Amino acid sequence: MLDEKNEPHVFDQAIALAASSRNVYSGTTSDAYRNMVGPFGGITAATVLNAVLKHPELVGEPVSMTLNFAAAVEPGEFEVEALPIRTNRSTQHWQVVQRQGGQVATSATVFCAVRKETWSEQELRAPEVCVPEEAARLDTAGRREWLANYEFRFISGSYDPSNPEEANDSYSLLWIRDNPPRPLDFAALAALGDSFFPRLFTRTQRSFPAGTVSLTLYFHADSLEIARTGTEYILGAARANRAHKSYHDQTAYLWSSDGNLLLSSSQIMYYKV
Amino acid sequence: MLDEKNEPHVFDQAIALAASSRNVYSGTTSDAYRNMVGPFGGITAATVLNAVLKHPELVGEPVSMTLNFAAAVEPGEFEVEALPIRTNRSTQHWQVVQRQGGQVATSATVFCAVRKETWSEQELRAPEVCVPEEAARLDTAGRREWLANYEFRFISGSYDPSNPEEANDSYSLLWIRDNPPRPLDFAALAALGDSFFPRLFTRTQRSFPAGTVSLTLYFHADSLEIARTGTEYILGAARANRAHKSYHDQTAYLWSSDGNLLLSSSQIMYYKV
Repeated sequence: MLDEKNEPHVFDQAIALAASSRNVYSGTTSDAYRNMVGPFGGITAATVLNAVLKHPELVGEPVSMTLNFAAAVEPGEFEVEALPIRTNRSTQHWQVVQRQGGQVATSATVFCAVRKETWSEQELRAPEVCVPEEAARLDTAGRREWLANYEFRFISGSYDPSNPEEANDSYSLLWIRDNPPRPLDFAALAALGDSFFPRLFTRTQRSFPAGTVSLTLYFHADSLEIARTGTEYILGAARANRAHKSYHDQTAYLWSSDGNLLLSSSQIMYYKV
Repeated sequence: MLDEKNEPHVFDQAIALAASSRNVYSGTTSDAYRNMVGPFGGITAATVLNAVLKHPELVGEPVSMTLNFAAAVEPGEFEVEALPIRTNRSTQHWQVVQRQGGQVATSATVFCAVRKETWSEQELRAPEVCVPEEAARLDTAGRREWLANYEFRFISGSYDPSNPEEANDSYSLLWIRDNPPRPLDFAALAALGDSFFPRLFTRTQRSFPAGTVSLTLYFHADSLEIARTGTEYILGAARANRAHKSYHDQTAYLWSSDGNLLLSSSQIMYYKV
């Protein structure tokens, strides 16, 4: 997508891939999405998904994906190999691997399908919250680079080392969107699914070595519903269920501003506190 | 594990694998775990995990796994290829594929690690419920074969076509354990993570074509804590968050009888209602 200066959005620059051979794409890490160790995991998720979305044999739209962060992605070039391992009439399973120097950095599986109209129901209602403009915007100046590409408006459970708010649990609730605003699509939604601070940072209001090991995303909306979201804020909620012996989980949900559950996300994270 | 007649438990028979070449194991489907189409997904999860657990290069213990059910497993023989794709000092990422006739039936990723003592906390408390013996045992006679291998004691949200209980939501809460009882281990816990009825069966009290597409399991306990559980009942809770255009999710949790969160599980499921 192009901005008002007719340049690609920083997000599109970051996830850009060039086809280099059958099933293989090449890309370069983006300094704009740097995190503690390697890039922001959400941008890796979006890049890996992008290889599937660009693939000429794609059937349907993404329904689920799991990423395993096997090693830190080093600054520079990488390749993404996207292999359709089983294609049926309206469903498709993918195995995707991101490599640097021949070594696996990220492995992933993606499931795509042609959705059909059916009986539908949403049980998980969006929490009742204030409008985005009433929630203070997080100042990301001087913090990890990737944070500047999002607008975070916390309702509860922020993590700001310069102004820590004591927390009794790991729960966060916030409005969020790309900065500058960018119409939502599958890739951006995938990245948002990993855009929460580590739950133990929120819980303890301290930072320490921590990193996502495995991330699973379920897309509950199709491309039409996602497109209708446009550049509106997305409501996000996240919590940890158990932190135990160097690993903790996170369950997260993202709703459109009119209350549709767009994505559910779970992850398991390493920590050393 | 052996029963009082010195025969392997039906579960151990079902997940048995023989090493056939480097990284490759062979197995046979078990009639005792038959489901609607192909075997009970939980037994496939346990079998795939078993290939990693038996592998001589294993580092640490399972922390997370994701299975993608790409095609129904046909009755008969299959092979499981377990490939350690990245091994660090105390962590290991696996890619696992189950094949029949050269075709991928199931693809999986497994993450294992050596856990260390750290600050730990469990946020997700177990619901307060009656003791197992006070919850009626589900009669599984005449139903899908796999159900007979579990003892289901529903507190709420059962699904029994012969005696449907009207439901306003998809939530289920139950005590469960292997039948006959078998000391808990990683493989059995993995299978239990998929032992819930499809959420829309519970919600609508009807059955229709439905099948898990992708299943993610996070083990929150190490082998010592799992072993301490022994043959005790496990408390399970599951719900769907959104059902939309032929796919719905499920979030599920399993606690030990003394309230420790042992496993969290999420899955995305196809349905045609």
